[in-house]
Amino acid sequence: MAATSQEARLQELIARIQPPDEAAAAAARARQDRLTKPKGSLGRLEELSIQLAGLQARSLPKARDKAVFVLAGDHGVAVEGVSAYPQEVTAQMVLNFLRGGAAINVLARHAGVRVIVVDMGVAAELPADPRLVRSKVAPGTGNIAQGPAMTRAQALQALLAGAELVEQELERGLDLVATGEMGIANTTPSAAIACALAGLAPEEVVGRGSGIDEEGWRRKVAVVERSLAVNNPDPADALDVLAKVGGFEIGGLAGLIVAAAARRLPIVIDGFISTAAAMLAVTIAPQARPYLIAAHRSQEKGHRLMLEWLGLRPVLALDLRLGEGTGAVLAMFVVEAACKVLAEMATFEEAGVSDRSGS
Amino acid sequence: MAATSQEARLQELIARIQPPDEAAAAAARARQDRLTKPKGSLGRLEELSIQLAGLQARSLPKARDKAVFVLAGDHGVAVEGVSAYPQEVTAQMVLNFLRGGAAINVLARHAGVRVIVVDMGVAAELPADPRLVRSKVAPGTGNIAQGPAMTRAQALQALLAGAELVEQELERGLDLVATGEMGIANTTPSAAIACALAGLAPEEVVGRGSGIDEEGWRRKVAVVERSLAVNNPDPADALDVLAKVGGFEIGGLAGLIVAAAARRLPIVIDGFISTAAAMLAVTIAPQARPYLIAAHRSQEKGHRLMLEWLGLRPVLALDLRLGEGTGAVLAMFVVEAACKVLAEMATFEEAGVSDRSGS
Repeated sequence: MAATSQEARLQELIARIQPPDEAAAAAARARQDRLTKPKGSLGRLEELSIQLAGLQARSLPKARDKAVFVLAGDHGVAVEGVSAYPQEVTAQMVLNFLRGGAAINVLARHAGVRVIVVDMGVAAELPADPRLVRSKVAPGTGNIAQGPAMTRAQALQALLAGAELVEQELERGLDLVATGEMGIANTTPSAAIACALAGLAPEEVVGRGSGIDEEGWRRKVAVVERSLAVNNPDPADALDVLAKVGGFEIGGLAGLIVAAAARRLPIVIDGFISTAAAMLAVTIAPQARPYLIAAHRSQEKGHRLMLEWLGLRPVLALDLRLGEGTGAVLAMFVVEAACKVLAEMATFEEAGVSDRSGS
Repeated sequence: MAATSQEARLQELIARIQPPDEAAAAAARARQDRLTKPKGSLGRLEELSIQLAGLQARSLPKARDKAVFVLAGDHGVAVEGVSAYPQEVTAQMVLNFLRGGAAINVLARHAGVRVIVVDMGVAAELPADPRLVRSKVAPGTGNIAQGPAMTRAQALQALLAGAELVEQELERGLDLVATGEMGIANTTPSAAIACALAGLAPEEVVGRGSGIDEEGWRRKVAVVERSLAVNNPDPADALDVLAKVGGFEIGGLAGLIVAAAARRLPIVIDGFISTAAAMLAVTIAPQARPYLIAAHRSQEKGHRLMLEWLGLRPVLALDLRLGEGTGAVLAMFVVEAACKVLAEMATFEEAGVSDRSGS
């Protein structure tokens, strides 16, 4: 696609995003209040069921068909020594995903979630495998400590490639999607994105990623500071932020979020990197915001502030910091539980249970 | 059983509780560190798998066979107007449990957990039903605002009836148990137990239960204060606390916890009432403490303090306040996830993934 038709495609997706259906949400709320439990006593499960009803425009929302998209990409900034692992691990982990041996595979099987593995920009030739979706924009980004991660055209390409993943997966049935990623050093661009969009200081946001020490952390803070000073991203222009300090898998996830919202699919956001992608997505399309569900609060330092910026409260308290979508698939189980409570519980009338005294 | 043989049976259970198996826990920890993820990045999932390995004395612990015990009982203190619902709801909800229409049924089906419904002391004759376990101590407790809930012999009977439930369920295969309950007004004795054992003030602990208003809350605080003043329970003697300000289902859960620990079964504790039962259980048998896993932090006011007293951190953040075991069965899914991660993930060697740079 030419750049102008790509811009048009993105605008078309954004324009398609609908607000929550108030009637469906109201019907779900009314039913929750007739189920055999004190009103509100299922807390977030009730809220999630009502939120999903509005998003899916169904008084009885569904979370049966679930997919987690694990987008992989490499990062030029890895040469700055910001990760505890060498860059080749990105490609090795993609192979691990395809063979079913990674944490996301185990947890997705447990929660009944399909895993879609996508090469958005791994810095290696990956072997032919029908299970691997090939959407490589380029073999790794530029080093953001020295210049932009990618061109604006590549940023747009990454967004639309992510959006296309949703369209392809719809055919197999899809009620709910989750974001996941793999990319050595990708907490560094994610921190830079969060700082750029929310006006936060790098030392508030940068964490220890996969496990760097104190000296490594200070180096990483300095790298994020430099990436912002060198590139000067425009916080009002998400595409500019993505191009200058982002990553291919992060852009893909942002596009995926916009496209999912355009299809009335709620999106369960995983950890730090996924949340940076969500910040880009709502900057591009503020109407996508109600479609987001936060899975957990990562141990990664700035995640709390990023969730606050998005106005999201996580449902799990598991101290995760792995990524891949691991927290998101566990949270999908909770979202599915919320839908089942709404659909399957007996009402006071059906069960012959007395409602509150005097009523 | 005569009182002395009952005392002997309880002592026998307590004596059988083993500390965690350090070798199994160490083997689990060593394996976690070889799995394809940064060390510690799965947070609580890693901790839970190691905890379970120690408790079950298996380097690869299991959480396949799971049961939630939903113990029901009525409370004389209901006449004080401490609940938003009439007492007959206890029996009505037991029937709802048996028909599969309650929240616990829906969530247990979702998480693959068996539901065992037990009449510990419902103030009604329940119809014959092979699925109902009949362990009724008496049709409701005495009003703790005026005198003891039960006799010491009844307290012992409740504990042992709860313990017996575990023994019976073992035959069907059991890796992990969860506590659940139903009993109109049972947040009131639970608050009294927490105050008695932890030396807390009623206004710190008493919450709004199933949904009383501000005036009802003040009345409930006064009722808990009166129950403590009238009965003067001995905090060093859990049986005395249970007899004076407890409940039959609460005593049953305490006995169940002791018996489960004696069988090396980890116990997932649900909300406010289950936590009061756990406080009784660890007062009776401090060795049972490591076997406890907290599911969630209830919206009920004192729950945070009670979990702190037990040294437990919940895994879910769902603002639940229903009871029945609803939070516990969802947490069981997380515990099972932890076991599967340990057993099913590939190691760095198996997957051909490079471990940390330089190693």
